Amino acid sequence: MTEDEARERFAGARVGRLASIDGDGRPHVVPICFAMDGSRVVSVVDAKPKRTMQLRRLDNVRRHPDVQLIVDHYDEAWSSLWWVRISGRASVVEHGAAREDAVDLLVNKYRQYQEQRPTGAVLVIDVDRISSWHAAGG
Amino acid sequence: MTEDEARERFAGARVGRLASIDGDGRPHVVPICFAMDGSRVVSVVDAKPKRTMQLRRLDNVRRHPDVQLIVDHYDEAWSSLWWVRISGRASVVEHGAAREDAVDLLVNKYRQYQEQRPTGAVLVIDVDRISSWHAAGG
Repeated sequence: MTEDEARERFAGARVGRLASIDGDGRPHVVPICFAMDGSRVVSVVDAKPKRTMQLRRLDNVRRHPDVQLIVDHYDEAWSSLWWVRISGRASVVEHGAAREDAVDLLVNKYRQYQEQRPTGAVLVIDVDRISSWHAAGG
Repeated sequence: MTEDEARERFAGARVGRLASIDGDGRPHVVPICFAMDGSRVVSVVDAKPKRTMQLRRLDNVRRHPDVQLIVDHYDEAWSSLWWVRISGRASVVEHGAAREDAVDLLVNKYRQYQEQRPTGAVLVIDVDRISSWHAAGG
Protein backbone atom coordinates (compact mmCIF):
# COMPACT_ATOMS: atom_id res chain seq x y z
CA MET A 1 0.00 0.00 0.00
CA THR A 2 1.41 3.40 -0.92
CA GLU A 3 1.54 6.13 1.72
CA ASP A 4 -1.14 8.06 -0.19
CA GLU A 5 -3.41 5.03 -0.14
CA ALA A 6 -2.70 4.44 3.53
CA ARG A 7 -3.59 8.06 4.32
CA GLU A 8 -6.78 7.83 2.29
CA ARG A 9 -7.92 4.65 4.03
CA PHE A 10 -7.04 6.07 7.43
CA ALA A 11 -8.75 9.41 6.89
CA GLY A 12 -11.88 7.73 5.53
CA ALA A 13 -12.38 5.33 8.42
CA ARG A 14 -15.31 6.04 10.73
CA VAL A 15 -13.67 4.66 13.86
CA GLY A 16 -10.13 4.04 15.11
CA ARG A 17 -8.66 2.58 18.27
CA LEU A 18 -6.43 4.84 20.33
CA ALA A 19 -3.64 3.35 22.42
CA SER A 20 -2.03 5.39 25.17
CA ILE A 21 -0.23 4.74 28.45
CA ASP A 22 -2.01 5.20 31.75
CA GLY A 23 -0.74 6.66 35.02
CA ASP A 24 0.48 3.23 36.16
CA GLY A 25 2.51 2.75 32.98
CA ARG A 26 0.03 0.25 31.54
CA PRO A 27 -1.42 0.28 28.03
CA HIS A 28 -4.91 1.72 27.51
CA VAL A 29 -7.03 1.37 24.36
CA VAL A 30 -10.38 2.89 23.45
CA PRO A 31 -12.35 3.34 20.20
CA ILE A 32 -12.61 6.94 18.98
CA CYS A 33 -14.12 8.94 16.17
CA PHE A 34 -11.50 11.16 14.58
CA ALA A 35 -10.62 13.33 11.60
CA MET A 36 -7.30 13.66 9.79
CA ASP A 37 -5.89 16.80 8.20
CA GLY A 38 -2.37 16.48 6.84
CA SER A 39 -0.09 15.52 9.70
CA ARG A 40 -2.70 16.18 12.36
CA VAL A 41 -5.37 13.85 13.71
CA VAL A 42 -8.09 15.19 15.98
CA SER A 43 -10.77 13.76 18.23
CA VAL A 44 -13.14 15.27 20.76
CA VAL A 45 -14.80 14.29 23.98
CA ASP A 46 -18.38 14.41 22.79
CA ALA A 47 -21.86 14.01 24.16
CA LYS A 48 -21.84 10.21 24.06
CA PRO A 49 -22.42 9.21 27.71
CA LYS A 50 -19.16 8.85 29.61
CA ARG A 51 -18.19 7.77 33.04
CA THR A 52 -15.36 9.72 34.63
CA MET A 53 -13.09 6.76 33.87
CA GLN A 54 -13.51 7.25 30.18
CA LEU A 55 -11.74 10.56 30.20
CA ARG A 56 -8.67 8.60 31.11
CA ARG A 57 -7.40 9.04 27.56
CA LEU A 58 -6.97 12.77 28.28
CA ASP A 59 -5.20 12.26 31.60
CA ASN A 60 -2.98 9.69 29.92
CA VAL A 61 -1.72 11.94 27.14
CA ARG A 62 -1.20 14.87 29.51
CA ARG A 63 1.29 12.68 31.36
CA HIS A 64 2.57 10.64 28.45
CA PRO A 65 1.94 12.14 25.00
CA ASP A 66 2.97 9.13 22.88
CA VAL A 67 -0.01 7.45 21.24
CA GLN A 68 -0.92 5.16 18.38
CA LEU A 69 -4.21 5.16 16.49
CA ILE A 70 -5.14 2.23 14.26
CA VAL A 71 -7.78 1.69 11.61
CA ASP A 72 -8.37 -1.78 10.24
CA HIS A 73 -10.58 -3.80 7.97
CA TYR A 74 -11.76 -7.22 9.07
CA ASP A 75 -13.12 -9.71 6.57
CA GLU A 76 -13.67 -13.45 6.78
CA ALA A 77 -11.57 -13.65 3.61
CA TRP A 78 -8.29 -13.11 5.38
CA SER A 79 -6.53 -12.14 2.17
CA SER A 80 -8.58 -8.89 2.35
CA LEU A 81 -7.36 -7.83 5.78
CA TRP A 82 -5.50 -4.55 6.15
CA TRP A 83 -4.67 -1.94 8.72
CA VAL A 84 -3.19 1.55 8.81
CA ARG A 85 -1.69 2.96 11.97
CA ILE A 86 -0.33 6.33 12.94
CA SER A 87 2.17 7.01 15.70
CA GLY A 88 2.44 10.47 17.17
CA ARG A 89 2.34 12.78 20.13
CA ALA A 90 -0.96 13.95 21.50
CA SER A 91 -2.01 17.05 23.38
CA VAL A 92 -5.27 18.20 24.94
CA VAL A 93 -6.73 21.48 23.69
CA GLU A 94 -9.58 22.89 25.74
CA HIS A 95 -10.11 26.37 24.33
CA GLY A 96 -9.38 28.73 21.48
CA ALA A 97 -9.01 28.70 17.72
CA ALA A 98 -7.08 25.41 17.57
CA ARG A 99 -9.96 23.70 19.35
CA GLU A 100 -12.53 25.24 17.01
CA ASP A 101 -10.52 24.23 13.93
CA ALA A 102 -10.38 20.65 15.20
CA VAL A 103 -14.11 20.58 15.90
CA ASP A 104 -14.76 21.95 12.39
CA LEU A 105 -12.86 19.00 10.92
CA LEU A 106 -14.95 16.58 12.97
CA VAL A 107 -18.24 18.30 12.13
CA ASN A 108 -17.33 18.10 8.43
CA LYS A 109 -16.69 14.38 8.65
CA TYR A 110 -19.51 13.26 10.95
CA ARG A 111 -23.08 14.43 10.40
CA GLN A 112 -23.73 13.27 13.98
CA TYR A 113 -21.61 16.18 15.21
CA GLN A 114 -23.59 18.58 13.01
CA GLU A 115 -26.69 17.79 15.02
CA GLN A 116 -24.92 18.70 18.26
CA ARG A 117 -21.58 20.51 18.00
CA PRO A 118 -19.22 18.96 20.59
CA THR A 119 -18.32 21.12 23.55
CA GLY A 120 -15.64 18.95 25.18
CA ALA A 121 -11.86 18.99 25.11
CA VAL A 122 -10.08 18.10 21.88
CA LEU A 123 -7.26 15.62 21.47
CA VAL A 124 -4.75 16.68 18.81
CA ILE A 125 -2.20 14.14 17.57
CA ASP A 126 0.86 15.32 15.64
CA VAL A 127 1.58 12.38 13.37
CA ASP A 128 5.20 11.23 13.29
CA ARG A 129 4.81 8.02 11.33
CA ILE A 130 2.28 6.06 9.27
CA SER A 131 2.54 2.27 9.08
CA SER A 132 0.37 -0.04 7.06
CA TRP A 133 -0.15 -3.70 6.34
CA HIS A 134 -2.18 -5.64 3.82
CA ALA A 135 -2.63 -9.42 4.01
CA ALA A 136 -2.22 -9.74 0.27
CA GLY A 137 1.12 -7.94 0.57
CA GLY A 138 -0.14 -4.87 -1.31
CA MET B 1 -24.26 -4.41 30.17
CA THR B 2 -23.90 -7.34 32.60
CA GLU B 3 -20.54 -9.07 32.92
CA ASP B 4 -22.03 -12.18 31.29
CA GLU B 5 -23.21 -10.12 28.33
CA ALA B 6 -19.84 -8.37 28.10
CA ARG B 7 -18.07 -11.74 28.06
CA GLU B 8 -20.42 -13.08 25.42
CA ARG B 9 -19.91 -10.08 23.15
CA PHE B 10 -16.17 -10.18 23.66
CA ALA B 11 -15.82 -13.92 23.04
CA GLY B 12 -17.98 -13.74 19.91
CA ALA B 13 -16.07 -10.93 18.21
CA ARG B 14 -13.99 -11.88 15.18
CA VAL B 15 -11.28 -9.27 15.72
CA GLY B 16 -9.91 -7.27 18.64
CA ARG B 17 -7.21 -4.62 18.99
CA LEU B 18 -4.31 -5.44 21.27
CA ALA B 19 -2.50 -2.64 23.07
CA SER B 20 0.92 -3.28 24.58
CA ILE B 21 4.01 -1.23 25.43
CA ASP B 22 7.06 -1.34 23.21
CA GLY B 23 10.75 -1.41 24.13
CA ASP B 24 10.88 2.40 24.13
CA GLY B 25 7.96 2.65 26.57
CA ARG B 26 5.54 3.75 23.87
CA PRO B 27 2.07 2.33 23.21
CA HIS B 28 1.63 -0.21 20.41
CA VAL B 29 -1.68 -1.39 18.96
CA VAL B 30 -2.46 -4.09 16.40
CA PRO B 31 -5.60 -5.98 15.33
CA ILE B 32 -5.63 -9.65 16.27
CA CYS B 33 -7.81 -12.70 15.95
CA PHE B 34 -8.32 -14.33 19.34
CA ALA B 35 -10.35 -16.82 21.35
CA MET B 36 -11.57 -16.56 24.95
CA ASP B 37 -11.91 -19.41 27.42
CA GLY B 38 -12.92 -18.35 30.92
CA SER B 39 -10.25 -16.00 32.24
CA ARG B 40 -7.83 -16.73 29.42
CA VAL B 41 -7.59 -15.08 26.00
CA VAL B 42 -5.34 -16.57 23.34
CA SER B 43 -3.97 -15.50 19.98
CA VAL B 44 -1.40 -16.96 17.62
CA VAL B 45 1.15 -15.74 15.14
CA ASP B 46 -0.37 -17.29 12.05
CA ALA B 47 0.37 -17.67 8.39
CA LYS B 48 -0.88 -14.21 7.40
CA PRO B 49 2.16 -12.54 5.87
CA LYS B 50 4.24 -10.68 8.45
CA ARG B 51 7.24 -8.48 8.38
CA THR B 52 9.66 -8.93 11.26
CA MET B 53 8.31 -5.69 12.73
CA GLN B 54 4.92 -7.23 13.24
CA LEU B 55 6.16 -9.71 15.79
CA ARG B 56 6.77 -6.71 17.98
CA ARG B 57 3.71 -7.64 20.01
CA LEU B 58 5.60 -10.73 21.26
CA ASP B 59 8.77 -8.81 22.11
CA ASN B 60 6.63 -6.22 23.87
CA VAL B 61 4.87 -8.62 26.22
CA ARG B 62 8.08 -10.50 27.00
CA ARG B 63 9.41 -7.22 28.40
CA HIS B 64 6.18 -5.71 29.65
CA PRO B 65 3.34 -8.20 30.16
CA ASP B 66 0.51 -5.70 30.76
CA VAL B 67 -1.91 -5.55 27.83
CA GLN B 68 -5.42 -4.52 26.94
CA LEU B 69 -7.58 -6.06 24.22
CA ILE B 70 -10.71 -4.27 23.03
CA VAL B 71 -13.68 -5.32 20.94
CA ASP B 72 -16.13 -2.70 19.74
CA HIS B 73 -19.17 -2.16 17.57
CA TYR B 74 -19.34 0.89 15.34
CA ASP B 75 -22.63 2.04 13.89
CA GLU B 76 -23.68 5.34 12.33
CA ALA B 77 -26.49 5.33 14.91
CA TRP B 78 -24.25 6.35 17.79
CA SER B 79 -26.79 5.16 20.36
CA SER B 80 -25.84 1.61 19.24
CA LEU B 81 -22.12 1.94 19.98
CA TRP B 82 -20.54 -0.38 22.52
CA TRP B 83 -17.20 -1.81 23.50
CA VAL B 84 -15.84 -4.50 25.79
CA ARG B 85 -12.25 -4.45 26.94
CA ILE B 86 -10.11 -6.84 28.92
CA SER B 87 -7.00 -5.94 30.89
CA GLY B 88 -4.50 -8.61 31.78
CA ARG B 89 -1.01 -9.97 31.69
CA ALA B 90 0.28 -11.72 28.61
CA SER B 91 2.90 -14.36 28.05
CA VAL B 92 4.36 -16.04 24.99
CA VAL B 93 4.06 -19.82 24.73
CA GLU B 94 6.11 -21.44 22.00
CA HIS B 95 5.82 -25.17 22.72
CA GLY B 96 3.94 -27.85 24.62
CA ALA B 97 0.43 -28.70 25.72
CA ALA B 98 -0.52 -25.13 26.70
CA ARG B 99 0.29 -24.01 23.16
CA GLU B 100 -1.72 -26.85 21.61
CA ASP B 101 -4.71 -26.10 23.87
CA ALA B 102 -4.64 -22.47 22.80
CA VAL B 103 -4.42 -23.38 19.12
CA ASP B 104 -7.37 -25.77 19.58
CA LEU B 105 -9.47 -22.87 20.89
CA LEU B 106 -8.53 -20.78 17.85
CA VAL B 107 -9.15 -23.60 15.39
CA ASN B 108 -12.61 -24.13 16.93
CA LYS B 109 -13.49 -20.46 16.52
CA TYR B 110 -12.00 -19.72 13.09
CA ARG B 111 -12.54 -22.05 10.16
CA GLN B 112 -9.62 -20.24 8.49
CA TYR B 113 -7.31 -21.90 11.02
CA GLN B 114 -8.86 -25.30 10.24
CA GLU B 115 -7.57 -25.03 6.70
CA GLN B 116 -4.03 -24.44 7.95
CA ARG B 117 -3.32 -25.11 11.63
CA PRO B 118 -1.10 -22.28 12.92
CA THR B 119 2.48 -23.17 13.75
CA GLY B 120 3.64 -19.92 15.37
CA ALA B 121 4.03 -18.80 18.96
CA VAL B 122 0.90 -18.28 21.05
CA LEU B 123 0.07 -15.22 23.15
CA VAL B 124 -1.83 -16.11 26.32
CA ILE B 125 -3.51 -13.32 28.29
CA ASP B 126 -4.60 -13.94 31.87
CA VAL B 127 -7.59 -11.64 32.24
CA ASP B 128 -7.59 -9.46 35.36
CA ARG B 129 -10.51 -7.20 34.54
CA ILE B 130 -13.36 -6.75 32.06
CA SER B 131 -14.70 -3.26 31.33
CA SER B 132 -17.59 -2.38 29.08
CA TRP B 133 -19.47 0.61 27.77
CA HIS B 134 -22.69 1.07 25.85
CA ALA B 135 -23.75 4.41 24.41
CA ALA B 136 -27.33 3.81 25.45
CA GLY B 137 -26.09 3.30 29.00
CA GLY B 138 -27.04 -0.40 29.06
